[in-house]
Amino acid sequence: MDTQSYIEQLGEGAKLASRNISLASFSQRNEFLKRLSEELSNSKKIILKANQKDLVEAANKGLSESLLDRLRIDQPAIDRMIDSVREVLNLPDPIGQIENLRSMPSGIKVGQMSVPIGVIGIIYESRPNVTIEAASLCVKSGNTVILRGGSEAIFSNQCLADCLSTALDQAKLPVKAVQLVETVDRAAVGSLLKLSECIDLIIPRGGKGLVARIAEEARIPVIKHLDGNCHLYLDDGVDLDVALKVAINSKTNRYGTCNTMETLLVAESLIDNLLPTIVKEMFSHGVEIRGCERSKNIAPEIILATENDWYEEYLAPILAIRIVSGIEEAIEHISLYSSNHTDGIVTQNHQRAMKFIREIDSSSVLVNASTRFADGFEYGLGAEIGISTDKFHARGPVGAEGLTSKKYVVLGNGEIRN
Amino acid sequence: MDTQSYIEQLGEGAKLASRNISLASFSQRNEFLKRLSEELSNSKKIILKANQKDLVEAANKGLSESLLDRLRIDQPAIDRMIDSVREVLNLPDPIGQIENLRSMPSGIKVGQMSVPIGVIGIIYESRPNVTIEAASLCVKSGNTVILRGGSEAIFSNQCLADCLSTALDQAKLPVKAVQLVETVDRAAVGSLLKLSECIDLIIPRGGKGLVARIAEEARIPVIKHLDGNCHLYLDDGVDLDVALKVAINSKTNRYGTCNTMETLLVAESLIDNLLPTIVKEMFSHGVEIRGCERSKNIAPEIILATENDWYEEYLAPILAIRIVSGIEEAIEHISLYSSNHTDGIVTQNHQRAMKFIREIDSSSVLVNASTRFADGFEYGLGAEIGISTDKFHARGPVGAEGLTSKKYVVLGNGEIRN
Repeated sequence: MDTQSYIEQLGEGAKLASRNISLASFSQRNEFLKRLSEELSNSKKIILKANQKDLVEAANKGLSESLLDRLRIDQPAIDRMIDSVREVLNLPDPIGQIENLRSMPSGIKVGQMSVPIGVIGIIYESRPNVTIEAASLCVKSGNTVILRGGSEAIFSNQCLADCLSTALDQAKLPVKAVQLVETVDRAAVGSLLKLSECIDLIIPRGGKGLVARIAEEARIPVIKHLDGNCHLYLDDGVDLDVALKVAINSKTNRYGTCNTMETLLVAESLIDNLLPTIVKEMFSHGVEIRGCERSKNIAPEIILATENDWYEEYLAPILAIRIVSGIEEAIEHISLYSSNHTDGIVTQNHQRAMKFIREIDSSSVLVNASTRFADGFEYGLGAEIGISTDKFHARGPVGAEGLTSKKYVVLGNGEIRN
Repeated sequence: MDTQSYIEQLGEGAKLASRNISLASFSQRNEFLKRLSEELSNSKKIILKANQKDLVEAANKGLSESLLDRLRIDQPAIDRMIDSVREVLNLPDPIGQIENLRSMPSGIKVGQMSVPIGVIGIIYESRPNVTIEAASLCVKSGNTVILRGGSEAIFSNQCLADCLSTALDQAKLPVKAVQLVETVDRAAVGSLLKLSECIDLIIPRGGKGLVARIAEEARIPVIKHLDGNCHLYLDDGVDLDVALKVAINSKTNRYGTCNTMETLLVAESLIDNLLPTIVKEMFSHGVEIRGCERSKNIAPEIILATENDWYEEYLAPILAIRIVSGIEEAIEHISLYSSNHTDGIVTQNHQRAMKFIREIDSSSVLVNASTRFADGFEYGLGAEIGISTDKFHARGPVGAEGLTSKKYVVLGNGEIRN
């Protein structure tokens, strides 16, 4: 079968299974998650073996160490997958509730019921844990899913897909509720993006190139985030210990994540009493600093930042620093350069905190907390299927709730309209 | 200036005004609505005169009576516009609330703040009241708007736009917050759809052809509804009086609206004791009936329905009727033919009511109430900017809340991530 026919067949299977999954009871969907956590636990050895096969092939192909790192599954990684399945298991039912039911003057009662979206296509690279997290969230929310992982993770993903099928079967749900694209043919992505008859939503996860291409090409709604050029602004009169702690954590906790701070904005009143300490500590973590004209004077190792640096998502131990006159200039800088993913302020001033919250147009706005908190787990969503920088439907970390829609429900007693 | 440059200029003006409007206080946005209602009240004569000019030109061009009807503004129509502005004035603030603020184990507090979307482009035909309703809802929700009405309503719309400008000015808000496209060049629509740098959302209102073309062409998110092929199912053991009343009202209350019933599904147990009465009453309203094989026998005037009739949105005094064996077949019929706009059931059985609510995948699902209730006013939204049959972002009648997005807000106390 050619790739397009194969993808169409997956799409039809997913659409048929969709009605069944959307009507499955809460306990049946949870039964799947329970069985899945057991199945993962029982299959540790074969998962590690399959992953080893991917790693060997990837190393032979000369993949970079950071890609190998994202591909690697070890014992703790399996435990984290199991934990994430259990977290999703413990979430309340994201579908079926009728919210905000209210009586209208006509006599009717009107509310909104949360319902599944239908069939979701996930296109992702490297990290095989996405296979488990995406499938868990989709089934929890009554959706079916087609998973298209990277070719470099095909053995790992097939092995994880087997666990998913077994768990679906044990929970008496159709196995076509979760399907893995088992061809490594790159044309499969293009075919998925055209399948508007069967797929209701596409979620890409991966590098900026992949995501931009998918958003451009798809004729199906896409929930995406492009980049995380995140800012932290240290305000006048800040608590110095808090500012230092939050700035260092926002940059150095992890370098490769989308919620890592990339530019630090510092009120000019802090040039002498705070900035030198921050710079010193960043250097001790091995962070390269690219500073504006004024911050460059703090230390000879600071490289002069160019206009490009303000736009850059380094995903590396590099930090841009800019001195600003105060909150107005900080907001102006962020409004111009931010990718609207995550931006934070450290301040002791209530009015300026509220001003920052109100005026910064990003999917997460933080006050006195590390940018690294912008994350589905930390927000209590159980897991996340991605972080949306779009303004539509779902914004910020997307969990089970972001995979639902709402329909109006009207309960009457024979009312007619005048 | 050519049309494209003109539209780009409107877009830039809207984008610049957007920040100002998004930060305007609740009372300032309400002040605009208060002034607008006064201005409309003071301008009745000139509005009627401008509309007269449109009507004369339209009649000269040979527009159909139904189009003239949609174009016409009379005294009661102006009063309805004023009422709708006052309804929007009385709505609570749709932006700025932080919902669901909760403490997480890490110590941070996480909530979601409703915020404006930005710049909204509305493309509509005929009805000039859309000019006022759309502008009211957009400004109430902190958005700016570009209005592109039909060329046949240009004098009416210009006159209404003058009222809008005056009210903005009186409320000390930028007049570019609401701009009317003042050229009748049809290329203006194409230019608007390409303005992704300035416009965040397009809402088309009008015939299916217009909406389909816009959805196809736009590279900006679109909230739309294509058609309203609405169903009413009369269930076994129904209260006969309620069923008759709701069925007649769903069809005959108004013929040209998107929430009018187009197909009536009747449980076969009701063939003898209910259907003849309904058919008789429909005939007395001048409704033509196209029935399935079995319902055709009720009266000789019933025309045999073809497969096409089940798909049709008549928007006219025509009704399709089909006998079904029961709720399963009714749900099957609706799932196949419905446009997922509005579908209802009349029943006395609780389980079947819940089954219908759960299984029908439409933007409004009604129990024991006329389909004509699927409407922003009736749902308490104050006014509606359209009815979405999409599953994303906003579904069903879209009021001020549908014109907002939500960003995550994190309030910390110096928390860092492990």
